[in-house]
Amino acid sequence: MSWAGVVDQYRARLPVGDTQAVTLHEGNTPLIEVPQLAREIGLDARVFVKYEGLNPTGSFKDRGMTVAITMAAAAGSRAVICASTGNTSAAAAAYAARAGMKAFVIVPEGKIALGKLSQALMHGAQVLEVKGGFDEAFEVVSGVAEARPVTVVNSINPYRLQGQKTAAFEICDTLGRAPDFHILPVGNAGNITAYWMGYSEYHDEGITSSRPRMMGFQAAGAAPIVEGRRVEKPETVASAIRIGNPVSWKQAEAARDESGGAINAVTDEKILDAYKLLAATEGVFAEPASAASIAGLIALHEEKVISAGATVVCTLTGHGLKDPTTAIDVNGGSTKIPADVATAIKVMGL
Amino acid sequence: MSWAGVVDQYRARLPVGDTQAVTLHEGNTPLIEVPQLAREIGLDARVFVKYEGLNPTGSFKDRGMTVAITMAAAAGSRAVICASTGNTSAAAAAYAARAGMKAFVIVPEGKIALGKLSQALMHGAQVLEVKGGFDEAFEVVSGVAEARPVTVVNSINPYRLQGQKTAAFEICDTLGRAPDFHILPVGNAGNITAYWMGYSEYHDEGITSSRPRMMGFQAAGAAPIVEGRRVEKPETVASAIRIGNPVSWKQAEAARDESGGAINAVTDEKILDAYKLLAATEGVFAEPASAASIAGLIALHEEKVISAGATVVCTLTGHGLKDPTTAIDVNGGSTKIPADVATAIKVMGL
Repeated sequence: MSWAGVVDQYRARLPVGDTQAVTLHEGNTPLIEVPQLAREIGLDARVFVKYEGLNPTGSFKDRGMTVAITMAAAAGSRAVICASTGNTSAAAAAYAARAGMKAFVIVPEGKIALGKLSQALMHGAQVLEVKGGFDEAFEVVSGVAEARPVTVVNSINPYRLQGQKTAAFEICDTLGRAPDFHILPVGNAGNITAYWMGYSEYHDEGITSSRPRMMGFQAAGAAPIVEGRRVEKPETVASAIRIGNPVSWKQAEAARDESGGAINAVTDEKILDAYKLLAATEGVFAEPASAASIAGLIALHEEKVISAGATVVCTLTGHGLKDPTTAIDVNGGSTKIPADVATAIKVMGL
Repeated sequence: MSWAGVVDQYRARLPVGDTQAVTLHEGNTPLIEVPQLAREIGLDARVFVKYEGLNPTGSFKDRGMTVAITMAAAAGSRAVICASTGNTSAAAAAYAARAGMKAFVIVPEGKIALGKLSQALMHGAQVLEVKGGFDEAFEVVSGVAEARPVTVVNSINPYRLQGQKTAAFEICDTLGRAPDFHILPVGNAGNITAYWMGYSEYHDEGITSSRPRMMGFQAAGAAPIVEGRRVEKPETVASAIRIGNPVSWKQAEAARDESGGAINAVTDEKILDAYKLLAATEGVFAEPASAASIAGLIALHEEKVISAGATVVCTLTGHGLKDPTTAIDVNGGSTKIPADVATAIKVMGL
């Protein structure tokens, strides 16, 4: 039998009872070893990427959304709402469509990647763009949900993080152990919180004998946890983590501290370098925000934090196809030639 | 242990010996039942979509490319080349990067979807755009490969179809039987050929007791097999199947005839209707060409070809994120409002 989605696969570990799952068969994403990347940066460690871009809507958000929408449907909800930098809205729109619900998504005006906007529209969500950033969008969501019967599916919805913790289970199930380091981007800080929940649950039950150090990375222009203060106007090319006031701030700090980890910042320049390096050396295309984990890996290696022979997992939160515009911007373009063999050979340098 | 990719998973059924696989853990894509879509079109059948957009580069091409690049690497090839409407070039570039090879991709000028172009560039391929369509691009590839030591990874490379046949294995493995009907888009006609190989192999060995009727659909403006003649200037919104002279033409006709199937045409209008219907009713976003299979399902139902209670599989060849531009074009856009709760409630009609 094939993979049935995270609710059915991990039902006993999720607060869903026997509720029928609303699923698109999310989860079961590949854990890909990236030895060429490790060699390229001179790191003697086993490095894996958890390629969450291969979830149905192209990001890790599907793990949480299947649980949130499953429970909203069971409770008789007819409509859901979320604020989003793009990935949450894509997932909310898709799972709401699957459940026959209406979805409303509130996004920062002009600031979500092209692919993500296309997803929300295709799945029939009503998309409202508001002036400001994610934080302003989230305030609108909260206000609407107080006044009207719509279910909020942002990560204040506790089912979201419950679903997201399944990625940690999958990693341990595949490796047969917990990694030594888990590196991931930090935006709203739900994912670092959820992974830590998952690793801790397996550890507490004796399924694994250790837990990883949780190493989170924010973009330098949107690094409230690193700076210890809300950032009023967060700016970064990594739009999925362009957040100035993370919803799961305290929980992320707890995950960091309990695990002996860290939350640091990486610049946009380093993020884009890592983004290109991963795609060019390993054939894995992740969205810019995802590359914060690879930029973080490089930074930790330079700081000699990663011991030789360590097992390291980096989460790639979303597929590179989410944001084709950035990919084209950072690369030299194509070359136009006539349909002629001799010209082609010359241009190719063969 | 997690899924290791199609070469290791189906090694005994592939002409690869014990060659080490070049893999991104492709395959193992979800087979998603779509009961709401069936109900919406009034069809009393079990309908599934094989969501090939969840392969690493977002299309079914990864299945063939892992085998082609595995064998090219084993043979010591340093460079690969292909002509492409976009998905093949994305896969070739990614797997070549994974193998440490150079990739050259020749695409029709101005005619590949944004996402696909971004992939080839990110994975470090040299992208040449030539005047004309796929067929002209393919002539350039053939000419270059005759003159220089580069491996052609178009579907004239026999390893490609060998890899692609694994999708049929997965469907039978999941269902525990072969479907009654298999509906899929037809462009270069490699996929219908490969699926038929896969279904026939399982059937010949007694793993399954039947084979499906193979129902292929071309876009009306690019329907050479339907019309029985090469189309000089193929035109369709479904760029992935905008091909006037399919490489696997004869094999596709054989698959059609041996299976008691058909190859028909669907208009762009029907393709786009199906594209939106699938995303809005089931939360599954596929690229326009993929929707030819859903448009085909609807056409077959209207012609009363599908018997009540039949098991039907439709291949969705690529992820909708491959082509965000078309998705935005065919939908009403977003609504811009100030970050104000009362305004939001009013616009949302709540």
